[in-house]
Amino acid sequence: MKIIIINGPNLNLLGKRETEIYGTETFEYCFNKLKEQFSTIELSYFQSNIEGEIISKMHEVGFHYDGIILNAGAYTHTSIGIGDAVKAIPTPVIEVHITNTYARELFRHQSYIGPNAKGVIIGFGLDSYKLALYSFL
Amino acid sequence: MKIIIINGPNLNLLGKRETEIYGTETFEYCFNKLKEQFSTIELSYFQSNIEGEIISKMHEVGFHYDGIILNAGAYTHTSIGIGDAVKAIPTPVIEVHITNTYARELFRHQSYIGPNAKGVIIGFGLDSYKLALYSFL
Amino acid sequence: MKIIIINGPNLNLLGKRETEIYGTETFEYCFNKLKEQFSTIELSYFQSNIEGEIISKMHEVGFHYDGIILNAGAYTHTSIGIGDAVKAIPTPVIEVHITNTYARELFRHQSYIGPNAKGVIIGFGLDSYKLALYSFL
Amino acid sequence: MKIIIINGPNLNLLGKRETEIYGTETFEYCFNKLKEQFSTIELSYFQSNIEGEIISKMHEVGFHYDGIILNAGAYTHTSIGIGDAVKAIPTPVIEVHITNTYARELFRHQSYIGPNAKGVIIGFGLDSYKLALYSFL
Amino acid sequence: MKIIIINGPNLNLLGKRETEIYGTETFEYCFNKLKEQFSTIELSYFQSNIEGEIISKMHEVGFHYDGIILNAGAYTHTSIGIGDAVKAIPTPVIEVHITNTYARELFRHQSYIGPNAKGVIIGFGLDSYKLALYSFL
Amino acid sequence: MKIIIINGPNLNLLGKRETEIYGTETFEYCFNKLKEQFSTIELSYFQSNIEGEIISKMHEVGFHYDGIILNAGAYTHTSIGIGDAVKAIPTPVIEVHITNTYARELFRHQSYIGPNAKGVIIGFGLDSYKLALYSFL
Amino acid sequence: MKIIIINGPNLNLLGKRETEIYGTETFEYCFNKLKEQFSTIELSYFQSNIEGEIISKMHEVGFHYDGIILNAGAYTHTSIGIGDAVKAIPTPVIEVHITNTYARELFRHQSYIGPNAKGVIIGFGLDSYKLALYSFL
Amino acid sequence: MKIIIINGPNLNLLGKRETEIYGTETFEYCFNKLKEQFSTIELSYFQSNIEGEIISKMHEVGFHYDGIILNAGAYTHTSIGIGDAVKAIPTPVIEVHITNTYARELFRHQSYIGPNAKGVIIGFGLDSYKLALYSFL
Amino acid sequence: MKIIIINGPNLNLLGKRETEIYGTETFEYCFNKLKEQFSTIELSYFQSNIEGEIISKMHEVGFHYDGIILNAGAYTHTSIGIGDAVKAIPTPVIEVHITNTYARELFRHQSYIGPNAKGVIIGFGLDSYKLALYSFL
Amino acid sequence: MKIIIINGPNLNLLGKRETEIYGTETFEYCFNKLKEQFSTIELSYFQSNIEGEIISKMHEVGFHYDGIILNAGAYTHTSIGIGDAVKAIPTPVIEVHITNTYARELFRHQSYIGPNAKGVIIGFGLDSYKLALYSFL
Amino acid sequence: MKIIIINGPNLNLLGKRETEIYGTETFEYCFNKLKEQFSTIELSYFQSNIEGEIISKMHEVGFHYDGIILNAGAYTHTSIGIGDAVKAIPTPVIEVHITNTYARELFRHQSYIGPNAKGVIIGFGLDSYKLALYSFL
Amino acid sequence: MKIIIINGPNLNLLGKRETEIYGTETFEYCFNKLKEQFSTIELSYFQSNIEGEIISKMHEVGFHYDGIILNAGAYTHTSIGIGDAVKAIPTPVIEVHITNTYARELFRHQSYIGPNAKGVIIGFGLDSYKLALYSFL
Repeated sequence: MKIIIINGPNLNLLGKRETEIYGTETFEYCFNKLKEQFSTIELSYFQSNIEGEIISKMHEVGFHYDGIILNAGAYTHTSIGIGDAVKAIPTPVIEVHITNTYARELFRHQSYIGPNAKGVIIGFGLDSYKLALYSFL
Repeated sequence: MKIIIINGPNLNLLGKRETEIYGTETFEYCFNKLKEQFSTIELSYFQSNIEGEIISKMHEVGFHYDGIILNAGAYTHTSIGIGDAVKAIPTPVIEVHITNTYARELFRHQSYIGPNAKGVIIGFGLDSYKLALYSFL
Repeated sequence: MKIIIINGPNLNLLGKRETEIYGTETFEYCFNKLKEQFSTIELSYFQSNIEGEIISKMHEVGFHYDGIILNAGAYTHTSIGIGDAVKAIPTPVIEVHITNTYARELFRHQSYIGPNAKGVIIGFGLDSYKLALYSFL
Repeated sequence: MKIIIINGPNLNLLGKRETEIYGTETFEYCFNKLKEQFSTIELSYFQSNIEGEIISKMHEVGFHYDGIILNAGAYTHTSIGIGDAVKAIPTPVIEVHITNTYARELFRHQSYIGPNAKGVIIGFGLDSYKLALYSFL
Repeated sequence: MKIIIINGPNLNLLGKRETEIYGTETFEYCFNKLKEQFSTIELSYFQSNIEGEIISKMHEVGFHYDGIILNAGAYTHTSIGIGDAVKAIPTPVIEVHITNTYARELFRHQSYIGPNAKGVIIGFGLDSYKLALYSFL
Repeated sequence: MKIIIINGPNLNLLGKRETEIYGTETFEYCFNKLKEQFSTIELSYFQSNIEGEIISKMHEVGFHYDGIILNAGAYTHTSIGIGDAVKAIPTPVIEVHITNTYARELFRHQSYIGPNAKGVIIGFGLDSYKLALYSFL
Repeated sequence: MKIIIINGPNLNLLGKRETEIYGTETFEYCFNKLKEQFSTIELSYFQSNIEGEIISKMHEVGFHYDGIILNAGAYTHTSIGIGDAVKAIPTPVIEVHITNTYARELFRHQSYIGPNAKGVIIGFGLDSYKLALYSFL
Repeated sequence: MKIIIINGPNLNLLGKRETEIYGTETFEYCFNKLKEQFSTIELSYFQSNIEGEIISKMHEVGFHYDGIILNAGAYTHTSIGIGDAVKAIPTPVIEVHITNTYARELFRHQSYIGPNAKGVIIGFGLDSYKLALYSFL
Repeated sequence: MKIIIINGPNLNLLGKRETEIYGTETFEYCFNKLKEQFSTIELSYFQSNIEGEIISKMHEVGFHYDGIILNAGAYTHTSIGIGDAVKAIPTPVIEVHITNTYARELFRHQSYIGPNAKGVIIGFGLDSYKLALYSFL
Repeated sequence: MKIIIINGPNLNLLGKRETEIYGTETFEYCFNKLKEQFSTIELSYFQSNIEGEIISKMHEVGFHYDGIILNAGAYTHTSIGIGDAVKAIPTPVIEVHITNTYARELFRHQSYIGPNAKGVIIGFGLDSYKLALYSFL
Repeated sequence: MKIIIINGPNLNLLGKRETEIYGTETFEYCFNKLKEQFSTIELSYFQSNIEGEIISKMHEVGFHYDGIILNAGAYTHTSIGIGDAVKAIPTPVIEVHITNTYARELFRHQSYIGPNAKGVIIGFGLDSYKLALYSFL
Repeated sequence: MKIIIINGPNLNLLGKRETEIYGTETFEYCFNKLKEQFSTIELSYFQSNIEGEIISKMHEVGFHYDGIILNAGAYTHTSIGIGDAVKAIPTPVIEVHITNTYARELFRHQSYIGPNAKGVIIGFGLDSYKLALYSFL
């Protein structure tokens, strides 16, 4: 089973930004732990700050991978294009968020990805990725 | 570890209503499977169609249980009272939905529970409850 | 043919509240006249001020009665839960209102029941129930 | 007792348009059946696609007829002028709709006629006219 | 100087409708008094309940008359078409209203005619026409 | 003089919830102090988390008590039904709130009770009840 | 007959500001012409840039003058206080505007004065004052 | 192939109104050039300022013509009735506009015709009709 | 204890305006009764129709008085400046209203003062001031 | 004559995505047919999923090409930046859409490109490009 | 070069209000430092809590000063009148704010002054005034 | 002191686009003048039309530069991602705009950068950059 985690803008700063909130653990560290824990899954990872590169990556994997775990960050709330990509590909997409977007600004309550996603997981910290992986088992 | 699943209005009809969509499996059947799968958790279950009874149940368990998995159904979108109860109790609450509420009517995109919940899981069918339980492990 | 009339909050005050507008006739009196006039119909009656009890009653009758005449009163405009119940049951539901809700406050123009009802009858006083019964003949 | 049925735009196409939905019965056929069924009522019929002609017809009959059954079609939702005409005449007006306007586009939920109508009947197919006639008995 | 008064829907009922408010004076009577008072003006009058006929009449007179006094009634608030006609013709148009539209429903506060009118006169009863005529002197 | 205090959802948690804000004093303790202070008033108390039970209680007392002091909690902002009950009964109702609802979320600024209440008292802590009682003297 | 013209903020700049639009004629000049033309009227004039001074002046004259011609300028669209003053006094108030407020920014389409005014005259330049005076004859 | 061009309100003024913008060419002149250029198409033309006449004409041709090119002018943005007519007839309808409606007032951005049209062509001047005809080849 | 009552625009007309509603009692008369009833409080009074004078008065007293009872009248709903003043000073402010602002126009439901006030008292007539004074005891 | 077709996000999937709707024809195939049909035009093609690359390409060609045919896909509805680019360059831009955006979600009815485009062509499938090319002839 | 700084409501409290945020430095102290630093500029200062006095001061200086630095405080967001004054005078106006209004309540994001100002400087503390002065050099 | 100027989409066209408004001076020319004028600052420059590249550049410099002057152009109003980046980095960001965004379309009044910026400077032409640099001195 081939699954990819795709992270959007600013998520490359994990472990570096606001460390009193997010801790000093980088996403790479988290990713390696997930690979260990879900060793039967062929797990890969992609990050980009560029909306169009996320769309292109989804096109690339979206016709033969078994799943996409997508944390589109700020693009979740503005990108009709990524939402369209989710709809255009047969691979199921799980939308995840580290923080509780419902507890933040009103503009983070809207999602262009949600309506086409297989499921949505919000607010469990880095465990949101772990729960998304469980949903494929 | 003591955890309770609280279901809101119309969820008692599972297995009976629109069976071509939801299947013929009742929630009781699902609940028993969850108890088997998570045998280390002391798992209980409560359902009510009455908003105020859900609030009362949360008061009852919310000061000594380890977790509440709450599918408030239609009250998710209108009940400030249940949202206040989530905030008033120390026990962490996971908001779950069986269907993808983002893919339904606009009035189902809003949640009064979400802002105070520990996490939100949307759209994985009855597996939404399973993922919520994983989040406590 | 089995049909039930379900009345929502404050409708138990008919004949007692604002009698200069609504007259001194109680709903029970009106109900007995309807039973006489539609003697071939097995007609029953339920009233509750509690949203969840109305939902439960609809679950109870909604799989084997021939019709529900529902005046949900104030819940018409706020209860997604009752609207969901109308959708969940196979028995057809007629939404009725005694007063002309279009001629009242803006928040009474919206209905969560209407989209799933078989028909809607508004503003004919207590005759709204009579017309609803005619629609089953 | 003199009552007139007034139909608005596109209702002249009944029996011709989308026959898989509306059937092949014309309104004229329906009208003749109503005349038979309510033989004690002097029933007449008027149809126009032109908003102003509907207003003029209401002026013509609205001071000496006993009732108007008005299906203003699309003008229901946009015509302040027809709404004003309903208010200006002493003859009571019943607003009817063949389809369930609450189950259609949002712009069909609003009515400029309703606030001034004696009653509103929505969604019973051609039987909506029959129920309106019953309300005069 | 050639000036025309154009009245829109329902204004033909003046003197007949709600006489306790509007009195029993018809607009024809009022018009004759205006002709006497402004005897140097060649004054004519047109009324229609049909939006398109009002547009056509404005095209007919709008290139050689000296002024149009337009009470478009209910069309004031919905007719982009009449508003476009006001803009399309060189003859100046005065928008008048008998009642104080600001003191009525919110939907009567908007005007599609106003932005292109030379001036607007609201709420002086039938004297609104008289003031409009003064504005041409 | 017979007066009842009616408290809505979550107010039964006073003295138990967020004690750093609300203190450890229960409402029962407060109620007893009020009874002492206003010894000439026959004062009773009712609390429910269930919207419909609050409506029923208001029907029960609303035709012969001298006053109702109503803190409907979260239902203040969503319950058209409680608002209708206030309007339906002759006993005057004072709306009270412990916290300053204007200083909280936007959805707490709206009240369905206020328009029909005799008066509104907001934000004086438990003293809001005391001021409401003064208003009856 | 005693009538006062009250002008609001910035109107003291007439003849000085944007003279290519408004001309070089001051309001004082205009006022003297009006006094000549309506010599039977005892006409006075007040201008202030301060909202509260306009309210005070209306209190001062509003119980014994025969009319107020009020151009509240920018306060028209924001001052509930001036609107309340119009309602509080028995003297009739005519709202006037020099420019066509309907053809300007959206926030100038709203008026807090209009609902309580006897009439409204918009867009005739300085002749708006003249027409307002005619309305008292 | 039989195709009709239907023009709505104010479009009869082409060549006469605002000639510095629209030129002095009438629509009749344009229509004759189109007939020459598309000589294999049996092309006809209809114009009305009356909403209901446009609906009636669409009923008349909409069951046996091969195409309708509809410039409903101002009715585009307000006529649910014309939109319904487009939906009711089997003949495909192309919505055209001479000017760029997106570059004009906000109320011209909405179209009741568009959702049911086969295609929409906006802003190419009189060439919009030519492109619509090409779409049938 | 030093407390000041500050009244805003139009409140100087009490006893003079709409006497059938407000009675013929002036605020001065009411103020004297309050001084008698609360003789242990050093009570003063200020009224102004000018927004900025109310702000200045609050600056003057707001650093050494024990309380301000503020009925800002119409400025309640529009003055961010007075709201800022309430926030800027250490003296606690009680917002009062004579009439039930919730039962009046929608624009009177909003308050810029409320969020920064210690408490709000609405709708008890002149007794609103009395209740405000009780809150300081 | 040099003309470029610029396609935005997800349009590279044509022929691959949802082939039951869009068919199995790629855009490259369509492009080659257009080159044959319009052999006198020097036609080129550019696609990118990246908003900023579309802007850059428009800068590159927008000062010496004769036309741009732009299908910005999802960016049509969100990209102020592409809209600004259309305005910044002298080359005329035709906005095209394959599907009828008016018949899709509400957020696809808005266009930031339209107001600055020379014309807009919506809903003719791949023929939308052909019609755009005709507009340059 | 003559430049005036005009401060609006509550800004006279600088150095006195919320000193833990704003410090204990008065505006007068700040003003003297600016006069030293920009000794070639003839710098004056005016403060008022009264909207109309700010308008009057702008009229007084706005036809012969070289610049106005305006911090209208709370009036920025509500005063159409001050906005009109900025437009009416030839002297360029720089809008300044001490705090970052974008980071505060939503109602502080709107400005009636901005559209007519030469430039806007937000959020640099008292240095906002210094930067405004630099803009004149 | 190390400071970078970051320009967003279309700003690379300065000196080339709409030269009658913006002049023929390129940003490179302006940048060189700034470097001369602020010779003690180590000043660098970056421009991109791609939202994600701007985010990446801010990550790159945002942890060790002393300041960022950011003109995000059209992305100011739509990019939650750039706003998040401003928040994520410790380096202070000054938002600048060449034109007065308050005097342009409504959608340019909103800023996702402002709430997290140290300050905002709007509308001084290319001098906006100069004033931003002064704010670091």
